[in-house]
Amino acid sequence: MNNLRNQSNPKINLVSGMRPTGKLHLGHYLGVLQNWVDLQKSQKYNCYFMLADWHSLTTKYEDTGLIGKSIIEITRDFLACGLDPDESTIYIQSHVPEIAELHLLLSMITPNNWAERDPTLKDLVRASNQDETNLTYGMLGYPILQTSDILIFKGSAVPVGKDQTAHLEISREIARRFNYIFKKEFFADPKPLFTETPLIMGIDGTKMGKSFNNDIKISATEEETINSVKKMITDPQRIKRTDAGNTEECKVPFPYYKIFADADTCKTVKFECETAKRGCIDCKKQLADLINAKFAIIRAKRQNFSDAEIIEILKAGSRKARQKAQDNLKQIRAIMKLNYFDKV
Amino acid sequence: MNNLRNQSNPKINLVSGMRPTGKLHLGHYLGVLQNWVDLQKSQKYNCYFMLADWHSLTTKYEDTGLIGKSIIEITRDFLACGLDPDESTIYIQSHVPEIAELHLLLSMITPNNWAERDPTLKDLVRASNQDETNLTYGMLGYPILQTSDILIFKGSAVPVGKDQTAHLEISREIARRFNYIFKKEFFADPKPLFTETPLIMGIDGTKMGKSFNNDIKISATEEETINSVKKMITDPQRIKRTDAGNTEECKVPFPYYKIFADADTCKTVKFECETAKRGCIDCKKQLADLINAKFAIIRAKRQNFSDAEIIEILKAGSRKARQKAQDNLKQIRAIMKLNYFDKV
Repeated sequence: MNNLRNQSNPKINLVSGMRPTGKLHLGHYLGVLQNWVDLQKSQKYNCYFMLADWHSLTTKYEDTGLIGKSIIEITRDFLACGLDPDESTIYIQSHVPEIAELHLLLSMITPNNWAERDPTLKDLVRASNQDETNLTYGMLGYPILQTSDILIFKGSAVPVGKDQTAHLEISREIARRFNYIFKKEFFADPKPLFTETPLIMGIDGTKMGKSFNNDIKISATEEETINSVKKMITDPQRIKRTDAGNTEECKVPFPYYKIFADADTCKTVKFECETAKRGCIDCKKQLADLINAKFAIIRAKRQNFSDAEIIEILKAGSRKARQKAQDNLKQIRAIMKLNYFDKV
Repeated sequence: MNNLRNQSNPKINLVSGMRPTGKLHLGHYLGVLQNWVDLQKSQKYNCYFMLADWHSLTTKYEDTGLIGKSIIEITRDFLACGLDPDESTIYIQSHVPEIAELHLLLSMITPNNWAERDPTLKDLVRASNQDETNLTYGMLGYPILQTSDILIFKGSAVPVGKDQTAHLEISREIARRFNYIFKKEFFADPKPLFTETPLIMGIDGTKMGKSFNNDIKISATEEETINSVKKMITDPQRIKRTDAGNTEECKVPFPYYKIFADADTCKTVKFECETAKRGCIDCKKQLADLINAKFAIIRAKRQNFSDAEIIEILKAGSRKARQKAQDNLKQIRAIMKLNYFDKV
């Protein structure tokens, strides 16, 4: 029996987050947000969704000026896509300073070589084009900070992609080590919550990424979307309009059809492409329309929230998160016998 | 001009601390406490004296049960020796959680190899009999935590022994790096404040240390002091009472005389020892009397403070420290452009 379930609150604590480093793109929507909304709807979880501003410092410490703006835009994406602040706790990491205190406490029981060997770290170093021999201490501690993000809420469910299972390993190890050292089964194992999500490529056929300039934003206008789709790489063997295409070789548009169109449409596109009945230009036009139709409601909903409203939502969410974090940290301090006297 | 001096408060911020891992001994008194009291009296500093409970976790994370008791006893030693809570801020590190947040923020700008190469770390590893290849992440970050302890109060004076100058190097580097990255001369260089303090050996002639079972506690009874002095190692060449001694070869008692007795007494002891007019037993008896006389008032004053009073003093000090820490952290967050919205 999971020790985070109890009579008064039988829901499982679920924690996830995003770094506020820009607006979200279709990859975020398909890979993360859709899933978060489903998890919220399932009513099985206490969902904690975090704007991980401290995490963005691990790679962007010199360049912090845009974090605040990005927090607002990403939260706007969250809300427009269906995250509901009445159902889920949406909060700013740095507004829950108890996470920093837990990070310090967990640091003391975590062997440094666990951090050094963590695959999350290696991925992060690769992704940020940093040199592994030239890390900051904070970057090295990133897996421990992530663990603190989860354990401060006694999180036991962490939605991840299949390729990210290893990332949770250190969190599990730290949770167990805490329980072992302080002789109490306090933290449940943070477990990965797998979800099948379609992988979506950038318009250049490589991994979609904010920093690669190959993404389509959730918040893009119809015009911007059309322009992005126009640049998509298709079947490189199809030179002339009259050449028959090969949808298996079509780098970007056809895989998008598989995501955004129904089976009949996909069948038609495949037939027309491979018999040269349709050219790439028309095909992309139809795809852009499909994407714009899919995101029309979400994009409209983005307009419903003023910056001031979003800030209020984040403050309320952060207050709620912080209260829970304070309760849990109090228990953690007691278990570690650090609760001499009351805090001032 | 030191940027921490200004018209409204021309005092320099001074920060120092002790780990709560037991009662204090004569080495602490001579090497640290006496100096702290003088610094307090000088009226030149805002003195912050910390019970560094988080630091004790770097080496003793499994064994936290005695920290609370130790905080009380050490604070009792502080007060009895002359630290005045109306003059100096005496506080518990973990009751100022802003230190943990600053530690996280500074972690993000501190190259990991600065931490790895820090001599403080190497000393700490040696002192705690840990294996350098088997550090915790928190132990590795110890120099950065120490830096946060200082910088959270914009400390620019740190009393250290001559052998500890190198320990402050990383704090200076981090302060400068912060100012450089965020383009503001915010932190002054934390500078070592040297003081000549007599080195006092343990009763076995090696370095006095709590864990070496060779110390004499400030709080020892007269009886305990006499018993400790009786065990002191003297001149190993002096076998019989009738042998002439050599005070240059006397391992412990004669160096203590140099500290606790006046010049005339030292001269007499030297003469009587080297002419076999006094034996080691009598010599030790006189020394124990000198030590007991020296600490009589301090030991009496220790009785003046109940545990409850000490806890109140620590709470008041921690509140005061925390208020300052909150003010400074707010400025630090603003300089780092992390002050989007107000904290909840």
